[in-house]
Amino acid sequence: MHVQALRGFRDYLPKEMLAKDGMLRTVCRVFESFGYPPIQTPALEYSSVLLGKYGEEGELLMYRFEDNGGRDVCMRYDLTVPLARVVAEHGDLRMPFRRYQIAPVWRAEKPGKGRYREFLQCDVDLVGVNSAAADAEMILVACSVLRALGVERFQLRLNHRGTLRGLTETLDLHGADEADFLRLLDKLDKIGEEKLAAAFAERFAFDERRQQLVREFCTAGQGARETLALLRGLVGSVPAASEGLDRLVAVLDLVEGAGEGHHVIVDPTIARGLSYYTGCIYETRLLDLTEYGSVMSGGRYDELVGVFAQRELPAVGVSLGVDRLFSALQELGMVGACETPAQVMLVHFSETLVDSLRVAARLRECGISVLLYPEAAKVKKQFQYAGSAGIPFTAVIGATEAARGTLNLKDMASGEQSELTLDQVVARLRAAVKASP
Amino acid sequence: MHVQALRGFRDYLPKEMLAKDGMLRTVCRVFESFGYPPIQTPALEYSSVLLGKYGEEGELLMYRFEDNGGRDVCMRYDLTVPLARVVAEHGDLRMPFRRYQIAPVWRAEKPGKGRYREFLQCDVDLVGVNSAAADAEMILVACSVLRALGVERFQLRLNHRGTLRGLTETLDLHGADEADFLRLLDKLDKIGEEKLAAAFAERFAFDERRQQLVREFCTAGQGARETLALLRGLVGSVPAASEGLDRLVAVLDLVEGAGEGHHVIVDPTIARGLSYYTGCIYETRLLDLTEYGSVMSGGRYDELVGVFAQRELPAVGVSLGVDRLFSALQELGMVGACETPAQVMLVHFSETLVDSLRVAARLRECGISVLLYPEAAKVKKQFQYAGSAGIPFTAVIGATEAARGTLNLKDMASGEQSELTLDQVVARLRAAVKASP
Repeated sequence: MHVQALRGFRDYLPKEMLAKDGMLRTVCRVFESFGYPPIQTPALEYSSVLLGKYGEEGELLMYRFEDNGGRDVCMRYDLTVPLARVVAEHGDLRMPFRRYQIAPVWRAEKPGKGRYREFLQCDVDLVGVNSAAADAEMILVACSVLRALGVERFQLRLNHRGTLRGLTETLDLHGADEADFLRLLDKLDKIGEEKLAAAFAERFAFDERRQQLVREFCTAGQGARETLALLRGLVGSVPAASEGLDRLVAVLDLVEGAGEGHHVIVDPTIARGLSYYTGCIYETRLLDLTEYGSVMSGGRYDELVGVFAQRELPAVGVSLGVDRLFSALQELGMVGACETPAQVMLVHFSETLVDSLRVAARLRECGISVLLYPEAAKVKKQFQYAGSAGIPFTAVIGATEAARGTLNLKDMASGEQSELTLDQVVARLRAAVKASP
Repeated sequence: MHVQALRGFRDYLPKEMLAKDGMLRTVCRVFESFGYPPIQTPALEYSSVLLGKYGEEGELLMYRFEDNGGRDVCMRYDLTVPLARVVAEHGDLRMPFRRYQIAPVWRAEKPGKGRYREFLQCDVDLVGVNSAAADAEMILVACSVLRALGVERFQLRLNHRGTLRGLTETLDLHGADEADFLRLLDKLDKIGEEKLAAAFAERFAFDERRQQLVREFCTAGQGARETLALLRGLVGSVPAASEGLDRLVAVLDLVEGAGEGHHVIVDPTIARGLSYYTGCIYETRLLDLTEYGSVMSGGRYDELVGVFAQRELPAVGVSLGVDRLFSALQELGMVGACETPAQVMLVHFSETLVDSLRVAARLRECGISVLLYPEAAKVKKQFQYAGSAGIPFTAVIGATEAARGTLNLKDMASGEQSELTLDQVVARLRAAVKASP
């Protein structure tokens, strides 16, 4: 009998889950403040729903088996294909359709540091319109999420598939050449300009004019507007690029109008790996931890959702890298590290257990989280438990306190003790919550 | 290519998910107010972890397959066995260990009305102590959850495995006879006294004295205390029963002391199907919808958790029947039926889109959920969308309003319209939230 989690999987214990749940509640609140409701889809789908959507490599990583009724099924691999299936199956969904979904997905990848075969995806999408307003809304959602999590120093890098198309057409790259070029370009962040130039030189025999074009494209301008102007000069003669640049201008106008322009740059080298993007694409980096890469990414994908419905259903979305962002916030010291939600532990004697239960009920009614040691135990043992579990306050209820209707509240960090009424305890604990990070 | 959810599975669309998420947030808040933190465990476990824990029938219903590395794995079947594995694997967890977990489980049962192969379980457990205080805490958690959900009319029926043991020993039933007897007894609620007596007569050749004992046992007393006294007279000579009755008295003292005694009766016919219970057991019925059966059930199981750790780890828990309770609350008209979290939709003209984005951002900062129609559309179309999506308020921002910094707020239900400042809008929408059910 195994006494361990399955290889490549892991448990999330209280300390981590409390912090992660707190983060996800904030994320949901922001999504809902933009009018996005949640949905859920099954963990299992007919294999025919998922196959052919993620490329060969993806299919090798799927958990696929025969269910007890002989059906060919797969475990959920992402949240986008199920969304497309949902929109097609429930034909009466009101358009434009907004939704968010937070759910685990399963991929049988080689496990590595921080990489597991089960991980949370967190997607927010808007289906049914192809407009600059929809593109801008997604960018505003991303900015709002990060700010709500306490992150102010971040940068959203915006691009449009059309500008990339403009470059590859001008370079006269097609098919596999185009795909290879974009794959290499997407690595710029990781490998740097010099290595990228070497990789291009090895793979493509660009003449000097083309090398020059690639260089200028990759380093175009400082601010978003300047970059757009330079790009128009470089690749604007290609219709797809010209349209893409027009859209980027419209999106920028809206994002700046909404007061988030200072977070946005245009970076024409952002390519996003997924081939299904068709319009705007964006990535978001934490300026204090750029090595984490993008923590929220997404873009417009106008062809995927309609595959099941067999009609045009443009869509745009953004996906939060939950685990990556959580690790980054941990490194920045921005998440709590409590193993219990309890704000106070009532220390009781066996003859004051009932009094303690009464006090606990009243404190809970005031929104305070209260823990009681769940059996008769020496006061010393109870204090030790509270201390080692990191509960910030204890409150002793002895016979004297029970008779007087008071508590002897102790701040476990400072050691400071005082006899307080219930109302005073509530006020004190509320103040402590407000003061904590 | 399938364009449907897998047989036996279903999607949860916005209207249902919004209400269910609201319910679950309340539940989590109550769990945490008692000091319980969340944990998560993998969807897949080594088969050897789960096999042999749920009986033959359970194993037939498991989703079991070989993973991509040839490992024999099963999808999660409940949350209790994974809890036992977690406690054993992470030997340094502080005892007593509290946790709650809300997660889907998978069972390949025959799908039926309201029964799916994927459903949420919601368990809260306290591991490491066998005390009346721990038993009472679980009962208080159950009462608090229901009250927090707005349910006041419910009844918690409490029993102890010891009283049942007292009855079966007094009847001289052992092994399969005892199991059959308890299985039948557990059906009393469903089939009624008369049919139960007939079933007993068919299966067991009880003499008149025994028939009399069973009758008296099943109908013992009115209030909890009276029932306990009568039971002591009937089966108290059996040591297990006497101990069980002592524990029930201690638990009742605490639950009454904490002010929840009026919800509790002692019902010696509650047997709970699961064979792993060893002490107190309880079920909770909604008095206005008794046909839904128990919506929160649980009990003490002192032997299961220790199986993996190979040491004694007493435990007590309660499980919320999420789907059942949700259906019941729906029937009682106690859950919302919105398809969007949006409290207000800003109706804009293309020239006031940027103004609308600015206003939306300020409203969201005040905690208001705001939806913008995500493209340029006729005002009539925007109003129609808001009306059909059930958004309670709209606010028009035309050139006049944009210049004055006001909104033209319309209550979609009453049709009432008024030009308000942003602060007035916030106050109005907050008041509307408070007034809604």
